[in-house]
Amino acid sequence: MYKINENYLKLPGSYLFSTIAKKVSAYQQANPDARIIRLGIGDVTQPIAPAIIDAMHKAVDEMGKAESFHGYAPDLGYAFLRETIAKNDYIARGCDISADEIFVSDGAKSDSANIQEIFATDNKIAVCDPVYPVYVDSNVMAGRTGTYDAKTQVWSDVIYMPTVAENNFVPEFPKQNPDLIYICCPNNPTGTTLTKAQLQDWVDYANKIGAVILYDAAYEAYISEADVPHSIYECKGAKTCAIELRSFSKNAGFTGVRLGFAVVPKELKCGDVSLHSLWARRHGTKFNGAPYIVQRAGEAVYSEAGKAQLKEQVGYYMNNARVIKEGLRDAGYEVYGGVNAPYIWLKTPNEMTSWEFFDFLLERANVVGTPGSGFGPHGEGYFRLTAFGNYENTMEALERIRRNA
Amino acid sequence: MYKINENYLKLPGSYLFSTIAKKVSAYQQANPDARIIRLGIGDVTQPIAPAIIDAMHKAVDEMGKAESFHGYAPDLGYAFLRETIAKNDYIARGCDISADEIFVSDGAKSDSANIQEIFATDNKIAVCDPVYPVYVDSNVMAGRTGTYDAKTQVWSDVIYMPTVAENNFVPEFPKQNPDLIYICCPNNPTGTTLTKAQLQDWVDYANKIGAVILYDAAYEAYISEADVPHSIYECKGAKTCAIELRSFSKNAGFTGVRLGFAVVPKELKCGDVSLHSLWARRHGTKFNGAPYIVQRAGEAVYSEAGKAQLKEQVGYYMNNARVIKEGLRDAGYEVYGGVNAPYIWLKTPNEMTSWEFFDFLLERANVVGTPGSGFGPHGEGYFRLTAFGNYENTMEALERIRRNA
Repeated sequence: MYKINENYLKLPGSYLFSTIAKKVSAYQQANPDARIIRLGIGDVTQPIAPAIIDAMHKAVDEMGKAESFHGYAPDLGYAFLRETIAKNDYIARGCDISADEIFVSDGAKSDSANIQEIFATDNKIAVCDPVYPVYVDSNVMAGRTGTYDAKTQVWSDVIYMPTVAENNFVPEFPKQNPDLIYICCPNNPTGTTLTKAQLQDWVDYANKIGAVILYDAAYEAYISEADVPHSIYECKGAKTCAIELRSFSKNAGFTGVRLGFAVVPKELKCGDVSLHSLWARRHGTKFNGAPYIVQRAGEAVYSEAGKAQLKEQVGYYMNNARVIKEGLRDAGYEVYGGVNAPYIWLKTPNEMTSWEFFDFLLERANVVGTPGSGFGPHGEGYFRLTAFGNYENTMEALERIRRNA
Repeated sequence: MYKINENYLKLPGSYLFSTIAKKVSAYQQANPDARIIRLGIGDVTQPIAPAIIDAMHKAVDEMGKAESFHGYAPDLGYAFLRETIAKNDYIARGCDISADEIFVSDGAKSDSANIQEIFATDNKIAVCDPVYPVYVDSNVMAGRTGTYDAKTQVWSDVIYMPTVAENNFVPEFPKQNPDLIYICCPNNPTGTTLTKAQLQDWVDYANKIGAVILYDAAYEAYISEADVPHSIYECKGAKTCAIELRSFSKNAGFTGVRLGFAVVPKELKCGDVSLHSLWARRHGTKFNGAPYIVQRAGEAVYSEAGKAQLKEQVGYYMNNARVIKEGLRDAGYEVYGGVNAPYIWLKTPNEMTSWEFFDFLLERANVVGTPGSGFGPHGEGYFRLTAFGNYENTMEALERIRRNA
C-alpha cells in the first residue's frame, strides 16, 4: 500500500486570506450599503503597459504562422530574454552576471518554493519573521523544519530572525549557524529594506559560515533611495554565496502573465559541485520553459517604451504608498515601509492584536488590510496595507481612516 | 556549511539529444550538401490554429485595459477552463469527473515530475521500459530509486516493466508490488496502446494491491481505434486509484504555449487523507497559476472552430504517421505504433544496436531519428521516428529510406 508524504500533514491550515474573505463577506452581508475598499492582497490592478501588449500581439501572430511558430523553448529561457536581463539588470549596475547564469521561469513564487530542492534535507534554514509564507511551507513539505507548535507558530528546526521596529527591521545574525538564509529585500510584508552596507554584512557572514543566501528581490523596481541595492550582486563576494530570485509581477504587472528568473552564478559551489549545474538539471527535468509569448512580453519590459511606461506605473503605485504613509502618520499611526516598497507596515494602536485591528478598520473605515500575525509570530501587533489599489480608492480609504479610525 | 541534495549527483548525464545533435552536426560538416531531415524530437511544427490565435489576441487586449485586466489566477485554474475540460474530456465520455477535480498547470512535464512529491520517499515506483525519462529522473532527485548501474542502465529500487514486441507492448504485473505505477498511454516512445480491457486489468490490480496509477494521457488526441480508452476514468474503479495527467502540447500544438492539467478525483484517498487536498496544497504553495492568456487559449481548443481546426491538425500528423509506417513496412522493416499515436517504433534490422542504426540512417538516408536505447535498457534494438514533421519532408525521408536503407 502506497503512503503519502507525511510532511504535508504537518502544515497548518492556510487560513489567512480565506479568513479575511469570510470576515469581509459577513460584514458586507450585515452592512449591504458599506462600500468596502480592499488594500489587503498584493495583487496589481493597473493594466499591462502598451509596449508589452504590442509585443504579445506580435508574438501571438508569430505563433499562428508555420514559418515563425515556436515549439519547445530552450529549458533555461530564450537567449533574447536572458541577454536583455543580463544587460539591463546586471551589467548596467556594474554586476558581473552573464546571460547563461540566468534561468527564466514562470515566476518567483515557483522559484522560491523550488530552490530548496537542490539542497540537503538536513540543511538548516533561517527566515526573517514576519515572512512570505512560501519559504517556510516549501521547506515543511521537504521535511526540513521539524515539529510545529501551533500556539507559538514556531517550527522547531527553523531559525527565526525577528525583524521588528525595535531592531529597525534589520535582522541580526542568528546564534546558531544557518545553511540557507532567506532574505526578501525590499521586504514583503514589512516594506522595509537593507542598505547596501547592511546587505554586505550578510554576504560576508554567509561566505564566512558557508551558507547560501536565497535573495528574493521581487520588489526591486520600487527602490527609490540611493543606498538600497537593486541586486545582491552589488555586494562584494555575493557570487560565491547568493542566488537571486526576480519577478516581473510587480514591476510590470505580470501577476497574471507569469514570468520570473533566478540568477545562479557559476562561482557558487559546494565543494566541486556548482549549484548552477544542479539548478540547470532541475529546470531540464521538471520544467518546459516559459511560454514564447510571455518571454517576448518580458523582453518588451526592457524596451525604451516599456521602461518609460513602467516607470510611470511604478510611480502611480508609489504615489499611493505615499498617500497611505502620510495619511496614516497624520492620523497618528506609527508607520514603516512604503518608501522603497509598495507595502506599508503599521503598528496597531492601543496594543490591539493584528486581528483586532483588522476588525476595527473594517468596521470603522470599511477598509480591508492584512493582519501582520498572518506572516509569523513577530508580525503580531502589525498590519499590512498595499499600494496596489487605484488612486481614488486609496485616497478615500485614507480619508475614512483619518476621520474614523 | 550547507550541503547539496546528493541525489542529484546520482543522475547519469542526459546525453541523448545532445549526442544526437553532435553527431548530426559532425555529419553535416563533413557532408555540406546533404539535406538532413529530422524526425527525431517530439516537438510539433504546425502553427497554432486560428481559433486559438483569435482567443489569445482577445485575451491580450483584455490584459491591456484596467476594466478587463486579470491579475493572479485562481491557484487551481480558472473555472471557465476547468468546466470546459470537465464537460468535453470527461462528462462527454461518460466519466464522472467534476471541474473541481481538475488542476490546471503549465504542462504535463511539470505535473509528471512534481506529482511524486505528495508521496512518501520510500514508496516503490514501477515504470515501463522503455520510458519517458522524466518519470524516473524526478524520482531519482527525490531519493526514491536506490543506486544506479551504468552498465545495465538500471536503478536498484525501481521496478521495470518491459514493453517489447515479445509481450505485444503490454506490461505484465510485476513480481514485487509497486506503490506508484507510471503508465503512459498512448505510449511515448513506442506509440503503442492498451485496450480498455487491458487498462481495466491494471486498475483492478492497483485497487487490489493499494497502488496509485499515474496515468499520462498526453497523446490521447491521436487515438483512432474504438477499444482504446481516452481516459483512465473510462475504467471502473479508476477514481480510487488513478491520477490522470493531460497536456495541450500535442493535440493543440502548445509545446511553446505551455498548458496541461492533472485530474485528482476526490475519492482517491490514502486512509483518511485525500490526495486531492495534498495536490491542492502543493499547487497553492509552489505554483501561481497558468497565464490568463494561455488559459483562454486552452478554452478555445474546445470551441466548435477550435475542435474542427485541431481535428485537421491531428489528421495531418497522423497522415505522416501512416506514410512512415507504410513506407517502413514496404522497405521490409518491423514497425509498431503510429495508429493511435504520433510515434513509430521500429525494430532495427540485422541486429544493429539503436545507435548503429542511428548512424546507418543518417549516413544512408540523411534522416535523423531517436535511438530506442535512450529511453531505457529495453529500448535497445529499437528506434523512434515521429510524425511531427511536415508532410513533404516526411514523404521524402521515407522515399530515401526505401531507396537506400
